[in-house]
Amino acid sequence: MATKDIAECRTKAAVLLRKARIPVTPSEIDAMEIADLGLGDIKHVGLEIIVYENNDRYCAKELVLLPRQTCPEHRHPRVNGRNLGKKETFRCRYGEVYLYVAGERTPNPRARVPRRYKSFLTVWHEIVLRPGDQYTLPPNALHWFQAGDKGAVVSEFSSTSTDEHDLYSDPRVRRVGG
Amino acid sequence: MATKDIAECRTKAAVLLRKARIPVTPSEIDAMEIADLGLGDIKHVGLEIIVYENNDRYCAKELVLLPRQTCPEHRHPRVNGRNLGKKETFRCRYGEVYLYVAGERTPNPRARVPRRYKSFLTVWHEIVLRPGDQYTLPPNALHWFQAGDKGAVVSEFSSTSTDEHDLYSDPRVRRVGG
Repeated sequence: MATKDIAECRTKAAVLLRKARIPVTPSEIDAMEIADLGLGDIKHVGLEIIVYENNDRYCAKELVLLPRQTCPEHRHPRVNGRNLGKKETFRCRYGEVYLYVAGERTPNPRARVPRRYKSFLTVWHEIVLRPGDQYTLPPNALHWFQAGDKGAVVSEFSSTSTDEHDLYSDPRVRRVGG
Repeated sequence: MATKDIAECRTKAAVLLRKARIPVTPSEIDAMEIADLGLGDIKHVGLEIIVYENNDRYCAKELVLLPRQTCPEHRHPRVNGRNLGKKETFRCRYGEVYLYVAGERTPNPRARVPRRYKSFLTVWHEIVLRPGDQYTLPPNALHWFQAGDKGAVVSEFSSTSTDEHDLYSDPRVRRVGG
């Protein structure tokens, strides 16, 4: 990703965190992961991540999604046969998030997805998260999500995170450890 | 605890959450635990807790401390021989928190503790947490904490919470499952 694009996403994510009134330190802003997931199209696909804590027992992150940014479909499989896969809770702090999981397809979903990504989105049961709303995904469940027009800030509480093991539906995605 | 005291703490905690700009739902306010820990002196000892999620893998709570309220000294021991004891991260969202852990005793600590509780506080190494600051405690570590004059809101990220197993230094404390 171009250095200029990384810097621009970092600045925009910092502005959203300020709007959400979530205090973060300057070093957390500097260390924020700007993840384009290897697609080189971060305006549409990607997210910005502050990892508060990730240890052998649990993980907590703040996820920032710029307006209409999408985290593409993926699941968290069993790792090293040791657990059932990452379990995670999304809690919306600011903005609006459209989360898609397995289940009955929602007619007229709120997410707007460019055609080139649509074929890799297979679950379309929509859950709308607004500030104070949350949703817990079982391990290994397929999911993807997009922010609304204002962008969004979402707290993620979960078991230990090993991003490099995540399985994405779109084979073009490249995810490295966060 | 008197119904009136519970209602008053709930209202004051809700005001602090609003000041902290942390969105919570009306049902979360209703379900908030008002914990006086059996001491019947919640102005000095106790806290208000919203449990966002507590499952077999991880736990996330919002802890509210009214001005100068203290969570008394305790530790999270190994439970059923299955793990090392609860591990937890405190992240300050609003106000100021004085956290005490084992280590060199801090001269002139910021916490103000009524004499009747002092003999049950054995660790006095002070860590000051302001908005955006966080601290992770190892399993089974003795700790206690007090809010500053404005009160405080602290996010707790942790392994599974089993409050009824917590061991308090003051034998008068009665902790039930949250």
